[in-house]
Amino acid sequence: MGMRAAVAGASGYAGGELLRLLLGHPRIEIGALTAGGNAGTRLGELQPHLAPLADRVLEATTPDALAGHDVVFLALPHGQSAALAARLGPDTLVVDCGADFRLADAGDWQRFYGTPHAGTWPYGLPELPGARERLRTARRIAVPGCYPTAATLAVLPALTAGLAEADVVVVAASGTSGAGRAPKPHLLGSEVMGSASVYGMAGTHRHTPEIAQNLTAAAGRPVRVSFTPMLVPMPRGILATCSAPARPGTTAARLRAAYQDAYAGEPFIRLLPEGGWPATSATLGANTVLVQAALDEAAGRIVAVAAIDNLTKGTAGGAVQSANIALGLPETTGLPTTGLAP
Amino acid sequence: MGMRAAVAGASGYAGGELLRLLLGHPRIEIGALTAGGNAGTRLGELQPHLAPLADRVLEATTPDALAGHDVVFLALPHGQSAALAARLGPDTLVVDCGADFRLADAGDWQRFYGTPHAGTWPYGLPELPGARERLRTARRIAVPGCYPTAATLAVLPALTAGLAEADVVVVAASGTSGAGRAPKPHLLGSEVMGSASVYGMAGTHRHTPEIAQNLTAAAGRPVRVSFTPMLVPMPRGILATCSAPARPGTTAARLRAAYQDAYAGEPFIRLLPEGGWPATSATLGANTVLVQAALDEAAGRIVAVAAIDNLTKGTAGGAVQSANIALGLPETTGLPTTGLAP
Amino acid sequence: MGMRAAVAGASGYAGGELLRLLLGHPRIEIGALTAGGNAGTRLGELQPHLAPLADRVLEATTPDALAGHDVVFLALPHGQSAALAARLGPDTLVVDCGADFRLADAGDWQRFYGTPHAGTWPYGLPELPGARERLRTARRIAVPGCYPTAATLAVLPALTAGLAEADVVVVAASGTSGAGRAPKPHLLGSEVMGSASVYGMAGTHRHTPEIAQNLTAAAGRPVRVSFTPMLVPMPRGILATCSAPARPGTTAARLRAAYQDAYAGEPFIRLLPEGGWPATSATLGANTVLVQAALDEAAGRIVAVAAIDNLTKGTAGGAVQSANIALGLPETTGLPTTGLAP
Amino acid sequence: MGMRAAVAGASGYAGGELLRLLLGHPRIEIGALTAGGNAGTRLGELQPHLAPLADRVLEATTPDALAGHDVVFLALPHGQSAALAARLGPDTLVVDCGADFRLADAGDWQRFYGTPHAGTWPYGLPELPGARERLRTARRIAVPGCYPTAATLAVLPALTAGLAEADVVVVAASGTSGAGRAPKPHLLGSEVMGSASVYGMAGTHRHTPEIAQNLTAAAGRPVRVSFTPMLVPMPRGILATCSAPARPGTTAARLRAAYQDAYAGEPFIRLLPEGGWPATSATLGANTVLVQAALDEAAGRIVAVAAIDNLTKGTAGGAVQSANIALGLPETTGLPTTGLAP
Repeated sequence: MGMRAAVAGASGYAGGELLRLLLGHPRIEIGALTAGGNAGTRLGELQPHLAPLADRVLEATTPDALAGHDVVFLALPHGQSAALAARLGPDTLVVDCGADFRLADAGDWQRFYGTPHAGTWPYGLPELPGARERLRTARRIAVPGCYPTAATLAVLPALTAGLAEADVVVVAASGTSGAGRAPKPHLLGSEVMGSASVYGMAGTHRHTPEIAQNLTAAAGRPVRVSFTPMLVPMPRGILATCSAPARPGTTAARLRAAYQDAYAGEPFIRLLPEGGWPATSATLGANTVLVQAALDEAAGRIVAVAAIDNLTKGTAGGAVQSANIALGLPETTGLPTTGLAP
Repeated sequence: MGMRAAVAGASGYAGGELLRLLLGHPRIEIGALTAGGNAGTRLGELQPHLAPLADRVLEATTPDALAGHDVVFLALPHGQSAALAARLGPDTLVVDCGADFRLADAGDWQRFYGTPHAGTWPYGLPELPGARERLRTARRIAVPGCYPTAATLAVLPALTAGLAEADVVVVAASGTSGAGRAPKPHLLGSEVMGSASVYGMAGTHRHTPEIAQNLTAAAGRPVRVSFTPMLVPMPRGILATCSAPARPGTTAARLRAAYQDAYAGEPFIRLLPEGGWPATSATLGANTVLVQAALDEAAGRIVAVAAIDNLTKGTAGGAVQSANIALGLPETTGLPTTGLAP
Repeated sequence: MGMRAAVAGASGYAGGELLRLLLGHPRIEIGALTAGGNAGTRLGELQPHLAPLADRVLEATTPDALAGHDVVFLALPHGQSAALAARLGPDTLVVDCGADFRLADAGDWQRFYGTPHAGTWPYGLPELPGARERLRTARRIAVPGCYPTAATLAVLPALTAGLAEADVVVVAASGTSGAGRAPKPHLLGSEVMGSASVYGMAGTHRHTPEIAQNLTAAAGRPVRVSFTPMLVPMPRGILATCSAPARPGTTAARLRAAYQDAYAGEPFIRLLPEGGWPATSATLGANTVLVQAALDEAAGRIVAVAAIDNLTKGTAGGAVQSANIALGLPETTGLPTTGLAP
Repeated sequence: MGMRAAVAGASGYAGGELLRLLLGHPRIEIGALTAGGNAGTRLGELQPHLAPLADRVLEATTPDALAGHDVVFLALPHGQSAALAARLGPDTLVVDCGADFRLADAGDWQRFYGTPHAGTWPYGLPELPGARERLRTARRIAVPGCYPTAATLAVLPALTAGLAEADVVVVAASGTSGAGRAPKPHLLGSEVMGSASVYGMAGTHRHTPEIAQNLTAAAGRPVRVSFTPMLVPMPRGILATCSAPARPGTTAARLRAAYQDAYAGEPFIRLLPEGGWPATSATLGANTVLVQAALDEAAGRIVAVAAIDNLTKGTAGGAVQSANIALGLPETTGLPTTGLAP
């Protein structure tokens, strides 16, 4: 028997990716599709790649439109989720792709987002220790940010195995869809094609405290994070290069074993063979995380890299993965592990 | 009165960029153009953007063809420069865009290139302390690698001012022309468009010891370098994100002052206004280096970023800049500071 | 009960796309995977996006390796299919993604390919009049070329309805994967990014006679075709802009009606709403053809445009679609109509 | 002695390209820089590639700001030029990069732009027969559109030599900068990368009557034009593929001769060797037009292709070229013929 899902924010990139995945989901059927300024528009005009839904007309995002579904996915601008979620019944699974409920520390939220803290929901990264148990009974889920998904999964085993110092440097390149669909001058094709740029230096990007929160929980001690995001000329994909000082006694073999042990049973994480290098192209449209780690003895550092599709595992795929758990479905239901390449 | 330049390796990307710059150089005229496998071909077929040279036919790269010029630029595969240079008179200025003579340490060379060390020539990065004096009388110049140019200039002031620890993390994204023009499967357009990838992890890239050599000389103490190169979908450009632990007493103001002092008189380095973020698009075709530095107090690190065009300042522009010095010309002669955008 | 498919040429782009589709096909399981020079290699090294097949090792392409399957897909260089097919039993369905058996006219073949004509197989474009009947009993199928698929489906209704003169101009832009995976200098990322180029003028491209053959059959009279292919900087996609003089009495309404009638029942062709413009991005990874047609009264011409993914509907998707028919399966089995965007 | 130029609309792409060229112009110095909504902003924030002008602050676009210059370049939205030009003295050379004064036929203007016709100025395409004479004494110049520049120069010799029928089909691919810098959803990098799209069918694009006007004047009889523009994923460049029925008696040799004769003395037009194919990459940043023409005997058509940089020869370079003529300077002054590649 099928369940029904509503998607709020169906006209944006996260909403479009949710719909793409739900169209292939064998247990969830698509119910209400809502939007803000695009309410009243045929989906075919906004998301022409979703041919089976081309004639659906978007409704306005209201609690009434979203009521009566088993699961409601929110893909809204920051700050809009709390009021909506309060109007949805406590038995409805609400999965928020926005940032509002990700951070546990209200001070972090205030510092990076400048608005009052809405609260904290169970964090939808099943690969974190203990996360699956929490998600199984959750009715509210905060989907991780795209950079935190990649960076956390890159370095997690090195920290939990005690091989890395709690001082992590993350430099991550993202495709442009991570910046959303609202037209801004610096996101024009003319500006981004042919250019790589940093767009947040020295810990100013909002994903910084979220990465630190994840790594601190995993390591069991405060982890400092230096995070620099880069924009590169591709629509999708995140490549996160992370490093940390190796703790005494760390060897290449122990590092490899730590990653193998940590990710042996993970359905979406693929530790590359030794010597293999992650590329985002191998993850496009898939919920896959490609991971590689190596020890740089001369520099005394562990280097770990993860590649994901920012819209799939980094947003909508991660959302469906956590929703599957909370809905009692097999975690992998409806989630592709085959990418689109070249 | 003009001087004459020969370019060996005129069919590749570095050679093409040398010719593009020399076509606009008011004091140097273009003499012999040579190539390996492409000898006998009209340049118009290989470098159709160099319209004024379209009907020149490439000669084979031999000492005879290169003889009789004031300056010979070598843009050859690794390992070919030494034998050629030995046949060019000691008064001829020989500027090598390849790696053969960059490293001072024969062990480093052997470890990273696997062939006997050819020797060490004066290093053509005029912005390094003391470099201009050495270049003025040099008749042999080793042009820096593209990554080392960007990474060195990003962190140099932080190290020379004693604000950063000698433990530097470099993650740099490069356009594809840095990998040269020899056709390889992973460099096909179908492979690189839409993908970001790492292609050297944990200090295995050959530019690692060169970065360390530069920073060690600048800091006056051994600097450890963790270097990870990334390939991103653009033809040109390097964006190097570097960081190092801040030493005690470092403040944002002192950091800013160190960069302002170090680069105040540099004709090609532009320290961005505070809050500005480097983008490679602003450097395309120009000999410009865009630099920004910031202090991340929470992470305890200095973050410094440099953007360059890998073929201009990163190769051919750097070569012409050093050649200008060695030829007694004003250093900026013929070198564009205006880029091509969008 | 499942059927088994072999894929010969699994290391190229067409082979990879066949495998991507077959991984999602509910009635066909994947049997032998073979290659030429890449035999012996793990598929994970060559097609890292096909994670479920990462550990499969490619066999050499031999009749023995391909024997014993219900269907054999050939994705080989021109000229290799005939000998292989002759060694596969007459009851095995052989679907050739190459050009060898597409042309009915041996003179055309000789003129454009310069080798002896191998023969003619039933042509795998089910949307052509009468094609489905022929494919139902076929055991040998020639998959259309990517340009012919797009161009034929763009203008077909205008010709069959007698609205267009038999004098068609086709200008079509293709992504780079259409040129295959063999590394060639002009296909390097550095060359193709930032550039649009023609690469066949005045009817010299090999797909010219194939387009003419299709349109001539559809129109029932000889159709002249002027075809110009362009290479544009994207990995996938073909956008074919076609036009022909409008015959007397043609109106916008009659033109629209002709397209609606022709494509009303087609599962993979989507005639855009009036005023809508096809974009290849909406077809990526899908077997979809986006079509639009309009009458230019001032110029006296019908203009018709089709957008496809060259590897899906243009190659592997078309192959699976025809194979479904020949295997007695529903034509749409396993073929996505949802694309990957952005 | 130098002349002074003002640029109105210095914050857009056309304005930026004008400034890039003027920075390299030996006889014109840069005076006032004005903008609309961006008045008051440092140019370094808007055009970071123009390093030598980084600290200039944009003024508001007013007649007073533009007064007192030898030449005023207007790079403004449609409809704003007439009022400004009326306030600039009749001896000031005013060069309008906008469309307002290009069309001779008020009905065409009204039909395609929907506003009253502002008038007609001498048309700044020096390569048209008789144009240089008219431009020499002009004080008002209408710079051609980018598509009309490419399409006109592609087919001009075939028409003036009487080899082609007056029935021309133009399909042209453009980079995204042709659509300007105002942020619109369909111009986002996420939308344009990886996609080719048509964006005007059946003669609806505003450049259609301008192409027809040029070709009609050249042919001396009414020329019908079918024009389809395509957007492809690159920042710059136009590739125009044009064709027309060959008139009786046309041979490949006569066609070649017609192009050689027509363009032998043209400083910016390069007829490619026979068999060569134009690519936009060879024109980037240069005022070059690459042209090729061939006879398709089977189709009975002449096919002619031109590649340009839409911002250089297609806009700002064309503007400077015509201004040079009107200012009594050598036509090629300050205009690059060397492109930036790869």
